[in-house]
Amino acid sequence: MRFLHTADWHLGKKLHGFDLQAEQQTAYEQILQLALTEKVDAVVIAGDLYDRAIPNETAVKQLNAMLIDLNLKHQLPLLAISGNHDSAARLRTGSDWFKATDFYLHTTVSQALTPVTLGDTQFFLLPYFEPFEARQYFQDETIKTVQQAMVKLVAAMQAQFDPTKKHVLVAHFFAAGSTHVDSETQVTVGGLNAIPVDLLAPFDYVALGHLHGKDALHADRVRYSGSPVKFSISEAQQTKGVWIVDTDPFAATFKPLTPLRDVRVIKGAFADLTQPAFYQQQAQDDYLSVQLTDQQVIPNVMAALREIYPHIIDLERVNGPVVTDNLVTKVDPNLDPMLLMQAFFEQTTDQALTKQQTHWAQAALTAANKEA
Amino acid sequence: MRFLHTADWHLGKKLHGFDLQAEQQTAYEQILQLALTEKVDAVVIAGDLYDRAIPNETAVKQLNAMLIDLNLKHQLPLLAISGNHDSAARLRTGSDWFKATDFYLHTTVSQALTPVTLGDTQFFLLPYFEPFEARQYFQDETIKTVQQAMVKLVAAMQAQFDPTKKHVLVAHFFAAGSTHVDSETQVTVGGLNAIPVDLLAPFDYVALGHLHGKDALHADRVRYSGSPVKFSISEAQQTKGVWIVDTDPFAATFKPLTPLRDVRVIKGAFADLTQPAFYQQQAQDDYLSVQLTDQQVIPNVMAALREIYPHIIDLERVNGPVVTDNLVTKVDPNLDPMLLMQAFFEQTTDQALTKQQTHWAQAALTAANKEA
Repeated sequence: MRFLHTADWHLGKKLHGFDLQAEQQTAYEQILQLALTEKVDAVVIAGDLYDRAIPNETAVKQLNAMLIDLNLKHQLPLLAISGNHDSAARLRTGSDWFKATDFYLHTTVSQALTPVTLGDTQFFLLPYFEPFEARQYFQDETIKTVQQAMVKLVAAMQAQFDPTKKHVLVAHFFAAGSTHVDSETQVTVGGLNAIPVDLLAPFDYVALGHLHGKDALHADRVRYSGSPVKFSISEAQQTKGVWIVDTDPFAATFKPLTPLRDVRVIKGAFADLTQPAFYQQQAQDDYLSVQLTDQQVIPNVMAALREIYPHIIDLERVNGPVVTDNLVTKVDPNLDPMLLMQAFFEQTTDQALTKQQTHWAQAALTAANKEA
Repeated sequence: MRFLHTADWHLGKKLHGFDLQAEQQTAYEQILQLALTEKVDAVVIAGDLYDRAIPNETAVKQLNAMLIDLNLKHQLPLLAISGNHDSAARLRTGSDWFKATDFYLHTTVSQALTPVTLGDTQFFLLPYFEPFEARQYFQDETIKTVQQAMVKLVAAMQAQFDPTKKHVLVAHFFAAGSTHVDSETQVTVGGLNAIPVDLLAPFDYVALGHLHGKDALHADRVRYSGSPVKFSISEAQQTKGVWIVDTDPFAATFKPLTPLRDVRVIKGAFADLTQPAFYQQQAQDDYLSVQLTDQQVIPNVMAALREIYPHIIDLERVNGPVVTDNLVTKVDPNLDPMLLMQAFFEQTTDQALTKQQTHWAQAALTAANKEA
């Protein structure tokens, strides 16, 4: 059995207001091509297909089209689970019919205990769940944490093991030892909600979703695929892709994906970043976090930079602004208070005052002068 | 071919704040039983399966369970379309897989032109659509109205007619001649958006959804099933149910459904309505529009009535309140203004002043006295 392991598609997600639909489509098309050229027997999607419980209609259309393409057009078996970003109840829609074409989409704890057998492998598809679901399922009031639930779930899965088969768990949780980045939903790092990796030892492979970097965990048989697209500047250094996993003999090979627009950090002085000699060497269309080394006021700096780099997602003054002391010491007692206010605003925010803001500022100064 | 014709389930709908889930479930169970006892070959659902584009999770679970029950458990072929209350894009989810079990759910204009043949009948499943969709589909800029679109659509469907078969249209629109009630979405009555019934003459039967009363239209071969549940007090007099339609020889038989709680109007004096001898003869649990004949103030009248009738959805003073003239002529110059205000408020709203309102009223009177 050879399968492709991906997760965390987060369809519908925006990056600082930019729609990632095209990036996600590009990544999807590469995933499909990999599935075909690597001749996989199945595609595993380990949760968070959508970015939110109620995705927008565009995301719904996009996911529907992808699943139709994979499963109905290319007849690839699919093994999927709901993640913490998905609404299990909504994502479940249609799944009772999907099975007929080897598309298994599990959204409840109980489904996880009925393995799906494809080729030489039993797949246990465990969706993201809250402790109360396991408590209900096992009728066991002592289950208070996901960790406690997993002890019982793994035992129940082992009871289903066919010893002549390989055993793969597909799940969406935080496994202990992993590192953490910005764009995931808040989880308790290393606390009660972390699943110790050794608890997962009975499986030949654990295909995880939840953390967005493939290197979040260092275990040979327990892996995160990471997201296929960078969803945060904290993921800028990650290599995105999918695992191609062989069960017998075991092998896991990472296949990187090429982003439509990368997420990167660029650092430099405003004068350098706006030099054609510099920016013509750049993929200007990338999603950029700009680290400006300048300290002085640059009027309309964001607008000026976006003329060259349209997808700036973040702007930081790495050396800080000119400290206020400087400004204060430099105050010319004859300087017009309005000019001083404009300079201060631009220095602090890297934006010029708008007409409306100028109007407010002038009104406030006039009022203050009257009182004085 | 014998089929059951229903429509306008509106799952997720609330009636003046009351959840109708149990009513809809009861109606569904009767529909299923009718489909089984009448041995129908298919169930037609002519749009508005949900009450809104983004139904709540309870409604999603309820519809999913009903469709699984009908199609997968009882193996009934289903022929369904999206209505104006549904999001076509969302409702479409899974429909590419449904076909394998004879569940045809059409959500686009183009799908309407591929008939579904079951037994002796070609079914054309036309979802609710806006003129722009037909304009795009036909690449015809002259299509400005649903009426104009229907002329072309009917011709295109006729071109697909197999003369050896019967031809049934399933659609969700306002057909001319129909009457109108409160609980539908606003449509232009008799205007540009109405479809003349004679345009539908080529079909052996037209199974319509949109209007909630089965008697909205008086045409032998073009019928609304109406909703299975009363969704508004304006529907109080309607008999809810489904049509059992035979294609050859043609016959349409209405099968009424028994509501869990009816929607009714009760009329009388407060003293009578609150008499055990009266209300013990009533289905007190029904959804009631109460028409009070009293004119005088009845403190906390709604709360008092809801003690007996928990599901009051509307309260009306059919003889009006005591006219203000009476009040004015009866004003005792020595009457405390606060008592007068309380009496006036209760007479107008049938509610006593709350503590907070009393506080406001007293503050206002105090302020007015100071100014005087």
